Amino acid sequence: MIIVMQKDAAKSDLESVEKKIIELGYQPHIIYGETRNVIGAVGEERGKEKLQTLQSMSGVENVVPILKAYKLASREVQPQSSEVEIVPGLTIGGKEFVVAAGPCAVEDRDQICDTAVAVKQAGARLLRGGAYKPRTSPYSFQGMEEDGLKLLAEAREITGLPIVTEVVNPRDVELVARYADVMQVGARNTQNFALLKMLGQLDKPILLKRGMSTTIQEFLMSAEYILSEGNRRVILCERGIRTFETATRNTLDISAVPVLKQQTHLPVIIDPSHATGHASLIAPMSYAAAAAGADGLIVEVHPCPEKATSDGPQSLRPDDFQVMMDKLREFVKVADREMA
Amino acid sequence: MIIVMQKDAAKSDLESVEKKIIELGYQPHIIYGETRNVIGAVGEERGKEKLQTLQSMSGVENVVPILKAYKLASREVQPQSSEVEIVPGLTIGGKEFVVAAGPCAVEDRDQICDTAVAVKQAGARLLRGGAYKPRTSPYSFQGMEEDGLKLLAEAREITGLPIVTEVVNPRDVELVARYADVMQVGARNTQNFALLKMLGQLDKPILLKRGMSTTIQEFLMSAEYILSEGNRRVILCERGIRTFETATRNTLDISAVPVLKQQTHLPVIIDPSHATGHASLIAPMSYAAAAAGADGLIVEVHPCPEKATSDGPQSLRPDDFQVMMDKLREFVKVADREMA
Amino acid sequence: MIIVMQKDAAKSDLESVEKKIIELGYQPHIIYGETRNVIGAVGEERGKEKLQTLQSMSGVENVVPILKAYKLASREVQPQSSEVEIVPGLTIGGKEFVVAAGPCAVEDRDQICDTAVAVKQAGARLLRGGAYKPRTSPYSFQGMEEDGLKLLAEAREITGLPIVTEVVNPRDVELVARYADVMQVGARNTQNFALLKMLGQLDKPILLKRGMSTTIQEFLMSAEYILSEGNRRVILCERGIRTFETATRNTLDISAVPVLKQQTHLPVIIDPSHATGHASLIAPMSYAAAAAGADGLIVEVHPCPEKATSDGPQSLRPDDFQVMMDKLREFVKVADREMA
Amino acid sequence: MIIVMQKDAAKSDLESVEKKIIELGYQPHIIYGETRNVIGAVGEERGKEKLQTLQSMSGVENVVPILKAYKLASREVQPQSSEVEIVPGLTIGGKEFVVAAGPCAVEDRDQICDTAVAVKQAGARLLRGGAYKPRTSPYSFQGMEEDGLKLLAEAREITGLPIVTEVVNPRDVELVARYADVMQVGARNTQNFALLKMLGQLDKPILLKRGMSTTIQEFLMSAEYILSEGNRRVILCERGIRTFETATRNTLDISAVPVLKQQTHLPVIIDPSHATGHASLIAPMSYAAAAAGADGLIVEVHPCPEKATSDGPQSLRPDDFQVMMDKLREFVKVADREMA
Repeated sequence: MIIVMQKDAAKSDLESVEKKIIELGYQPHIIYGETRNVIGAVGEERGKEKLQTLQSMSGVENVVPILKAYKLASREVQPQSSEVEIVPGLTIGGKEFVVAAGPCAVEDRDQICDTAVAVKQAGARLLRGGAYKPRTSPYSFQGMEEDGLKLLAEAREITGLPIVTEVVNPRDVELVARYADVMQVGARNTQNFALLKMLGQLDKPILLKRGMSTTIQEFLMSAEYILSEGNRRVILCERGIRTFETATRNTLDISAVPVLKQQTHLPVIIDPSHATGHASLIAPMSYAAAAAGADGLIVEVHPCPEKATSDGPQSLRPDDFQVMMDKLREFVKVADREMA
Repeated sequence: MIIVMQKDAAKSDLESVEKKIIELGYQPHIIYGETRNVIGAVGEERGKEKLQTLQSMSGVENVVPILKAYKLASREVQPQSSEVEIVPGLTIGGKEFVVAAGPCAVEDRDQICDTAVAVKQAGARLLRGGAYKPRTSPYSFQGMEEDGLKLLAEAREITGLPIVTEVVNPRDVELVARYADVMQVGARNTQNFALLKMLGQLDKPILLKRGMSTTIQEFLMSAEYILSEGNRRVILCERGIRTFETATRNTLDISAVPVLKQQTHLPVIIDPSHATGHASLIAPMSYAAAAAGADGLIVEVHPCPEKATSDGPQSLRPDDFQVMMDKLREFVKVADREMA
Repeated sequence: MIIVMQKDAAKSDLESVEKKIIELGYQPHIIYGETRNVIGAVGEERGKEKLQTLQSMSGVENVVPILKAYKLASREVQPQSSEVEIVPGLTIGGKEFVVAAGPCAVEDRDQICDTAVAVKQAGARLLRGGAYKPRTSPYSFQGMEEDGLKLLAEAREITGLPIVTEVVNPRDVELVARYADVMQVGARNTQNFALLKMLGQLDKPILLKRGMSTTIQEFLMSAEYILSEGNRRVILCERGIRTFETATRNTLDISAVPVLKQQTHLPVIIDPSHATGHASLIAPMSYAAAAAGADGLIVEVHPCPEKATSDGPQSLRPDDFQVMMDKLREFVKVADREMA
Repeated sequence: MIIVMQKDAAKSDLESVEKKIIELGYQPHIIYGETRNVIGAVGEERGKEKLQTLQSMSGVENVVPILKAYKLASREVQPQSSEVEIVPGLTIGGKEFVVAAGPCAVEDRDQICDTAVAVKQAGARLLRGGAYKPRTSPYSFQGMEEDGLKLLAEAREITGLPIVTEVVNPRDVELVARYADVMQVGARNTQNFALLKMLGQLDKPILLKRGMSTTIQEFLMSAEYILSEGNRRVILCERGIRTFETATRNTLDISAVPVLKQQTHLPVIIDPSHATGHASLIAPMSYAAAAAGADGLIVEVHPCPEKATSDGPQSLRPDDFQVMMDKLREFVKVADREMA
């Protein structure tokens, strides 16, 4: 941590800060500058926040952190990439580029089972589908809850595809875990720390979505919540951030893929459906994701988007999904990855 | 809802959309334009989302909502302003400009009790203090939990100030409600719908903070979640939004005050501490809030900011708080409001 | 244009708006709704802004535009994609994926000529280099001006590569045009309409960069300024937008590529250097651009980034550029395009 | 400047950076840390950018600036606040809270002269009006140009109010300066450095608006462009920044007022019209500006907003302006300032 003193800070201020740094267990190194002095505080910063409080001390202008605040998520700590096992024979973060697909919400037996069969045939390796839906409006469809989970399980039975589904309430973690192969944390819950802590105690892979105004650093801190509770199977998902641009539902931060790949060993996938909000943009964004080095995708596919209870406009029809997957396979190959 | 057809949409597309609109219970009115046709769908839109699905139909370019999606929160539905009773004799949203103050987190008995006495003396009408802290890092202090609630209750005993404190987990709602006079929903939980629904069933006022990337429309939809469950005592709090500017922790959206006042009957207060992140900016932003028409403030005050376990840099010392309150009283008077 | 009346608008308000719509040369169509009325104003909206003024009339709640405000840039008006000829034999927007490369700023003869030779060999088809540099600080290097243009011309002589260089002042348009093959408008000048108008009168292709807070709609309006003056050779360039994320210099809005491709016939290229600000992110973003359907790239290459007068950290070394180009060629092929 | 080395940086990397720092004229101070080393480079950083290039050197992780890049604009360099004289007897930045008012664009003789008389009577001290209008659409009214300037001069003759008007093209600086008392730089030209440099050579006060995505640091660097050319009469104007929120045209960054007041000695005013885009929000934002410590306002007033060629919806009618000014006077007084 670097502590920048004010231009006119008194000598006694400098001494107080120096003393305080020692008190907190760090070693102070003063650099006497031309217009102001700065103090480097040497010591393991991670897991300690106390140095930040120096900012309130007399004569201090600014406190600048040097190290990242996450540890277990950091590639510095674990240089080799993590391969997260979903089920035996299916891993995210390794050689395979993995696609999860399915409807936004589970609506009925036919809808979810037909979609499951179709996406499997096109090459998807996981089935997605929401049984608990966090909706902006209390008047919107809120999901089929446990009935939806049962239908997902039925679709898994039929197709063999493991299922990924969202959990929104710490109370439901146990129930959802009874059905799901991968527990999804949605963008509105990226910083729902109570939920993250419970998921950290689970023996299931977690798909953690980035919040729409979560920085990459905060995103990795949220992953750290899960990791620090003992669950090391975390998959990160970039799904668009909120910006001033309204042509798309969100702005896909595609450069988050290589940035995350540099900073963390965790796998990174892309959700082109929520990122763009338009079915016609899913294919180009999926190709871009593969080219940028992502480990996979999670895509919304609905047999009849105009009848969907939610997110119809951003869902692909099964036929279009098939066409996309065929082209995607070529991009994935150039990216030195494989697809089923 | 207005449905805009594509320039080259077929006559059969137009007819299908028309038919679908009728099916969904609305009346279609076609306007034949020079380059494209638009259809107005007449009917009560609120509580229905289905028209949005028309976007996936062939020939449809865009679907433009006309009405706001919230109802109970709307000033159109309830023209007179709501006055939310906190405890007998204390109301937010009426003539009085109400200030809540206290530390970010409850740390120990002396800290919270001394602060309570100091802020009461300066004119605060509520004591704030966090017992459950949603922290970005799992390694940061997470709050004293129930012990903190007990200390808050003790401070209330001493000063008579009702207490406002945050709840972060639906599981803790009942426990927190046993101690708190006002239940606070923090910015990270503005769209934690599971939590909002539970709070909607409570007979306690709720202080709902705006999320850092929540639009005003979404913010009011979150209020609607609470209102639609039966709890009408909702107080809105603007606490800064996330923008590109880094000179402040967030950007205080001061114009949200009059915008909210136009769109909703609910009271609106400002949190200048989280909005700015710097103690030196709290006073000017508090004055601005009063001048802009806010109903109150929630401010961080700590007896010794450099020892605070969290948010020290954005906490006022009791002396500075006293000075600010004295000046604030003058602005409040010009704004035709009163302060204790 | 759709005019939404207030819930309690008087009958006379509705009539006044109706009358005004006729006055302005449109045909009004009233839709009587359950809670409020809306009026559709039929007529060619483009090129007229007057209907927006209805917003100030009594009883009007909102005015919602239906048509896009640009015309010449619109794919609706010109369905086939534009191929912009740079020099005979080199076209952007056709089958070829075109890469422009070179240093941020021209610094000296060796620097620009060596770079030109290197990027040509790697497959670049244009040489980029700034002679006029818009710098945030008045104390930063402002460019070599005409001397820089002369060195660019020399590098062109040696390599045969046409040159693209920025013009920042309407006063310099004529001078820069004497040397440049493509005139670049930088992100800070996207809405410098005086400059755009002058460039619209030129017989040279224009590379128009998106401003860092320019919406796609505004970006196309800026293109419209050039097109409407008669110059149809406009190339659009997405170079990152400003968001809350600080891990990258800007946030590359990769979905702008397919969105622009839907809305306009103009070619679209990507600047991965300014978008990210880090050399290590250029290659993955270049691959993503090709996969997303872009028509080309403009990339910063510097023989010795640590000695660059500007933007060193986001410049590739010639060797790394060569490696990237070789991989890029494979992605371009899968995207059904060709590269030299 | 602090140079943070990578965790695994070689000893030779550290030595190379050290050597380079000396070469550039600074003194290196190495702090050996537990996980990585950092180097403080001591010396006057301002006016030098070269240290930033260290980022491209082998083994360097990050380069963190300690000092602000502006000098003449800095309150550190000039502690006392600048009072900018407009005309003899009228100063911005002193005891008086100064209001400029008038229409967005000059449209005809009656419009500008009537407005001038009305705003003067209500207490405005400057007349605003645009003769050159930077419009997003090439099809919108672009201003009356010199004819507009002449009408402004006539209105000044009648009322005695000095005039503030925008210049958008370096070519027009001389012409506009012949008429204007204050030269305005609009939000789209905040980083039009060619224009800023010319204005820096003028003997006229400059009203510099913040761009919609300009950080406070960049804003002060733009002021520095003018100051460094010799013109010390710069007035800063916050007019809203671009965010995700669409309820207002822009988001008024009210905390920019006290932040700027801390960082610079230059006067700061607020433009509530462009910041909000709605006439009904102008009064509360004006009161907030006064309460937050601004030195004045620039407000749009139009005798008949529904006939305005631009920005009608955000213009006050003269009557409403009068009402606002009367209330504003009270807030200004509490803020220890005076109004005519």
